[in-house]
Amino acid sequence: MRQNKMLLPTLREVPKEAEITSHKLLLRAGLARMFAAGMYTYLPLGFRVLKKIERVVREEMDRTGAQEILGNQLQPAELWHTTGRWDDYGPEMMKLKDRHERDFVLGPTHEELFTTLVNNEVNSYKKLPFNLYQIATKFRDERRPRFGMLRAREFAMKDAYSFHDSTESLAATYDEMYNAYSNIFTRLGINFRPVQADAGAIGGSGRNHEFMALAEIGEDTIAVCSHCDYAANLEKAETAYRAAGAAPTSDAPAFEKLHTPDVKTIDQLVTSLGVEASSFMKTLVYLADGQPVAVCVRGDHEVNEVKLQKLLGARTIEMADAATIERVTGAPVGFIGPVGLSIPVVVDREVAGIASGITGANEKDFHIRNVVAGRDFSMERTGDVRNAVAGDTCPHCEEGVLEFYRGIECGHIFELGTKYSDALHATFLNKDQKQQPFIMGCYGIGVSRLITAIIEQNNDEKGIIWPLAVAPYHVHVIPVKVKDEEQMKIAEQLYDRLRAQGVDVLLDDRDESAGVKFKDSELIGIPLRITVGKKAGEGIVEFNVRKTGETQEVSLEAAFDEVLRLVKGE
Amino acid sequence: MRQNKMLLPTLREVPKEAEITSHKLLLRAGLARMFAAGMYTYLPLGFRVLKKIERVVREEMDRTGAQEILGNQLQPAELWHTTGRWDDYGPEMMKLKDRHERDFVLGPTHEELFTTLVNNEVNSYKKLPFNLYQIATKFRDERRPRFGMLRAREFAMKDAYSFHDSTESLAATYDEMYNAYSNIFTRLGINFRPVQADAGAIGGSGRNHEFMALAEIGEDTIAVCSHCDYAANLEKAETAYRAAGAAPTSDAPAFEKLHTPDVKTIDQLVTSLGVEASSFMKTLVYLADGQPVAVCVRGDHEVNEVKLQKLLGARTIEMADAATIERVTGAPVGFIGPVGLSIPVVVDREVAGIASGITGANEKDFHIRNVVAGRDFSMERTGDVRNAVAGDTCPHCEEGVLEFYRGIECGHIFELGTKYSDALHATFLNKDQKQQPFIMGCYGIGVSRLITAIIEQNNDEKGIIWPLAVAPYHVHVIPVKVKDEEQMKIAEQLYDRLRAQGVDVLLDDRDESAGVKFKDSELIGIPLRITVGKKAGEGIVEFNVRKTGETQEVSLEAAFDEVLRLVKGE
Repeated sequence: MRQNKMLLPTLREVPKEAEITSHKLLLRAGLARMFAAGMYTYLPLGFRVLKKIERVVREEMDRTGAQEILGNQLQPAELWHTTGRWDDYGPEMMKLKDRHERDFVLGPTHEELFTTLVNNEVNSYKKLPFNLYQIATKFRDERRPRFGMLRAREFAMKDAYSFHDSTESLAATYDEMYNAYSNIFTRLGINFRPVQADAGAIGGSGRNHEFMALAEIGEDTIAVCSHCDYAANLEKAETAYRAAGAAPTSDAPAFEKLHTPDVKTIDQLVTSLGVEASSFMKTLVYLADGQPVAVCVRGDHEVNEVKLQKLLGARTIEMADAATIERVTGAPVGFIGPVGLSIPVVVDREVAGIASGITGANEKDFHIRNVVAGRDFSMERTGDVRNAVAGDTCPHCEEGVLEFYRGIECGHIFELGTKYSDALHATFLNKDQKQQPFIMGCYGIGVSRLITAIIEQNNDEKGIIWPLAVAPYHVHVIPVKVKDEEQMKIAEQLYDRLRAQGVDVLLDDRDESAGVKFKDSELIGIPLRITVGKKAGEGIVEFNVRKTGETQEVSLEAAFDEVLRLVKGE
Repeated sequence: MRQNKMLLPTLREVPKEAEITSHKLLLRAGLARMFAAGMYTYLPLGFRVLKKIERVVREEMDRTGAQEILGNQLQPAELWHTTGRWDDYGPEMMKLKDRHERDFVLGPTHEELFTTLVNNEVNSYKKLPFNLYQIATKFRDERRPRFGMLRAREFAMKDAYSFHDSTESLAATYDEMYNAYSNIFTRLGINFRPVQADAGAIGGSGRNHEFMALAEIGEDTIAVCSHCDYAANLEKAETAYRAAGAAPTSDAPAFEKLHTPDVKTIDQLVTSLGVEASSFMKTLVYLADGQPVAVCVRGDHEVNEVKLQKLLGARTIEMADAATIERVTGAPVGFIGPVGLSIPVVVDREVAGIASGITGANEKDFHIRNVVAGRDFSMERTGDVRNAVAGDTCPHCEEGVLEFYRGIECGHIFELGTKYSDALHATFLNKDQKQQPFIMGCYGIGVSRLITAIIEQNNDEKGIIWPLAVAPYHVHVIPVKVKDEEQMKIAEQLYDRLRAQGVDVLLDDRDESAGVKFKDSELIGIPLRITVGKKAGEGIVEFNVRKTGETQEVSLEAAFDEVLRLVKGE
C-alpha cells in the first residue's frame, strides 16, 4: 500500500479518553476510531491486523477439522426463552423489536442458535462428533466499556460449539481445542497462560480453561505455581490444605470477652491487640439464595464468593446488607463472630486450624479470644472458601508456591455437557436407538480483544512493536526524499519486488521529512524498515529492526534477502 | 473436507416455504437455514460460497486501490439525525436503545458514518481522492422478506464510499468502479447488464448505474436496446420522442360528449367504441407534495411515477384516493379527463401527438371525443412521464427497439456529489485554502444476494451447477464403496494430492450407495466429479463434468491433470 492517500491518521498527542498504553496506541497509530462507547470502526491498518489474527485463528481451527459457518446476528427471542436466558442474561443483552413487534436478541453468544441448528439437522450418532465455529461480530452492552478493545460493546469473536455422543469424545475435542488455542496464541506472539477457571454465565459441568495474556492492565488475577504447571484464575485457584501440626488443641483456655471499643477492622485489631492477622477468625454474612449464612475465614484471607457459592450449591450469592447483619447477629459490622450464632456457619479449612483464635463477640465494642472452632461453635460446613494468596503452597504439586499475575482473558474453553441440549430438548438417536441429549463443548476467542493484548505486550515509548505474524505490513519502505527521482525509483522497485514475493509492504511516498516518517513508522510499529536515502544510488540502504532498534547500512540485495528470510520463516 | 461428519443436510423434498428455484436449492443443497424471516445462518457449504464471492469482490476492489475498513454495525442515532434519515428512512431501519436509553441504528447503510469518519480525519485536498470500502453485515427490516437471500433482512454487503475534490476526480473513480463491477460479475460467472437507474433513497446528483443479473424472478424490469448498448431500469428508461408526422391537426372537429354508462376501463372503451387504446388520453390524479395534479398518458401507456416526480421536482408523489379524485374532478374514477379541470394537467409528450383523442368527461357515465391537447385543454407541463414499453424505439440510438428483461439488482453505483457532505458539514481545505464539501461517490454490491443470482442462473432439474470461481469445492471425489480398502485408499490419495495443489476437494467418505452420493453431488452442484470405483485398481476412474453431464472413463492421472488444468485456468 502507498501511504500518501491512505487513511492512516497518526496522532502526536495522547487522546484524553485513553487510560492505558494499548488504548492510547490504538488511537495514536490510527488503527481504529470510536463512534460510541465500546464501538469501533477499524481503519485500514487496524483492519489488516484484525484479518491477520482471524487468519491464524481460522487456520488452526480448520486444522482440527472444525467446520466454519456463520450464524445470524439477530436471533429470535423464542430461542432465548427456551433456555431462560432471555430473562437471566441481564442488561448486557441488546434487544430490539422488528416492524411486526417481534422480539430479537443481538447475539452476545450463540449456544441457543447452534444447538437448535444441530438439533434440527442431525439425528444420528453416526454424524458425531463435529465442531462448528464462526468468526463474527458479537454485541454485549457492557456496563462500563473501556480500555479500547478490551471491554467493547461490539466486538469480533470466534466461537465454536462441538457436539458429541459421549463425554470421552467431548474430552478428546476439548484437548484438541486446548492445543489449538495454545498454537494460536503462540503463533500470535502472545505471552499467555492457560488457567483453570470458573464457568460463569456460560456454565457447564466439566472442565474449563481460560487463556490469559499476561498484562498489568488485565482485569483478571491469576495464580501460577513457581514449580509445576498449575495455573488458575483467582476465582478458581484452590488452596493447599495442610492440616498436620495445626489441629486445634483441646487445652486452650475457655474463651473470654475483650472490650474493644471502636476497634472494627482486622488492621485495628492487629495494632491494638498486638496479635497477627492470621489468628483472627474474620466473619462475614452472606445471603445464599436469599438465606443468611455466616462465613468465617482467617483475618489475613478474603472470602472467595465463587467457591462459597459452589460449596453451598447456591444459585445466587451476595453480601448481606448492614441491617440484615445486625438482625441476624445482634451486632453491627465489625463485631461479628461465629460463636453463638443462630444461622449456619461456613468455615474455611484454615480457620479450623487456628489453635486459639480471636473473633467478634456479636456485641458492639466486644471481641472474644481463645476461640476454638468445633469446640466453641459448630461448623455447618468446612471447605476451601478463601482466595489464594501469593506465597500459598501450590495445591497441585505442594512443592512450589503460588505467584500472582494480572491477565487479559483471550480465550475460554468449556466442557458444557448437556446444559443447553437439555434446555432445548436437543437430542439424537444413539447406538442403542434411544434419544439422547447432545453432549457439548464450547470454545471462544476474543478476536478483537487480542489486538489490545498484543499491543499491551509489544510496545515501547516510541509506539507499537508488532510481531511479524500480525503486523499490518511486514516491512516499511521509506524513501527519504520522494522528490529525488532516483530514490523514488529504487524505492518503488523494491516495493514491487517484495510484494511480488508475497511480502506485505507499506511504501511511505509522502512528501514529509525523514524525521516525521521515522516517527510514524515507529509509532505504527512495522517490524522491519528499509530506508532508501542518499546512498541508494550506490546500492546501499538502511535496514532497521523495530524491536531491537538495530540499524545497519547494507546492500539493497542484502536487505531484500533479509526481509524474505524473516517473513518466510514466520 | 470429508463429507461424513460434515454439516451438509441435503433435502430430497422441496421445502414448502420456497417459491423460486434458487430458494429451493439454497435449502435443498444445505447451504443455509433460516431462523427468522429473511435471516439466514450459513452452513459450511454456503459459507464457502459466500467467502469465495467476497474474495473476488475484495481482489477487484483492492486492485483499484480502494482501502478496506470495517465500520460499526451499531451507529449512534445522532449521525442519522444530522442527515434527517433517522426520520426519513422509514420502517426498514432497525433501531434499539442501549442500557442508558441511548438510541442506535443497526446500520442499513453507512453514508453517515463514513462521511463523519473522513470529516474527522482528513483536512486537506492533498489526501484526496481515496475510496474506502467494507464487506459487512447490513440490516434492513424488509416489509416482505422473500426469495431466500434475494430480499433478506440481515445480509452481507460490500459498500464503498469515495471522496474527491472535484467532479472530474469523482467521474474517474466512478468509471473505475464501473469497470471493477463488470470484472467482478464477469469473474463470478453472472449474466448481467449495467443499466441506468434511479438513485432512490441513497440519492445523489450525478450518474448512477445498477448491475442487473438477468433472471425471470428478478424484481426489476430492465429495458435493453436491440441495437446499441443502451440499457436502463424501467423506472429510469427514457422514451424516444418522435414528434414528426404526429402533430395534432387543427382541423379536428370540436369535441363532443359520448354516453358511456359503466364503461370505466380502457379495455371496456376499446371494446365498446371500437377504437385503439392508443387513441385514448388516460388521465390519473396524483398528489405531488400533497397537491393534486392530473397526469395524462396514452391509453396503452402507464404513468412512470419516478419520471413524474422528477418532472415536477416533487419531494413525494402518490396516487390520489377516490374521494380526492371525485372532489377535484367532480367525477368518479373511470370518467376523468383533462378537459375543463381546475388542477394542473401534466401531459405525456405522446398524448400531445394524438390528433383526435377520447377521454373522460369528468362526469359520471360520459366520455368525450375529438379531443386535441393544447386546443381543448391547457398543458401545464409536457414531458416523458410514461413507462417505456417493449418495441419502443431506443431513446439512445433511435435505431434499435427496446427489449424487456427481468433482473436481480446485484450492484448499484452512484455519483453522490455533496448530498451527505453538505448535510454533515463535512469539508476539507482545498487548493485555494478554502473549506469545501467533499464530493462523494458510493458503490454497493449485495454480496449474499449474489448467491441467489448465481443459483438462479446456474441450475438444472438435478440441482445447482456452480461456476468454478464460486464453487464451494472444485471437485468431488467419490469412492463408490468406502468399505473397499483399495478404492478408499486411492480416493484418499487423490484427495491429498489435489489438496496439496491448492484444489478445493470434497471427499464423499459416507457409507452410502453410489446412487445417493451422485444425487447429492449433483444437487450441491460441485463442477467436477471423480468417481473411484471398480476399475480404480487398474488406474481407471470416471471423470464427470456437472454442467455438461459428460462422463468419461479416464486414467487417474488424466483426471488429476484435467482438474488442475481447469482449476488453474480459472
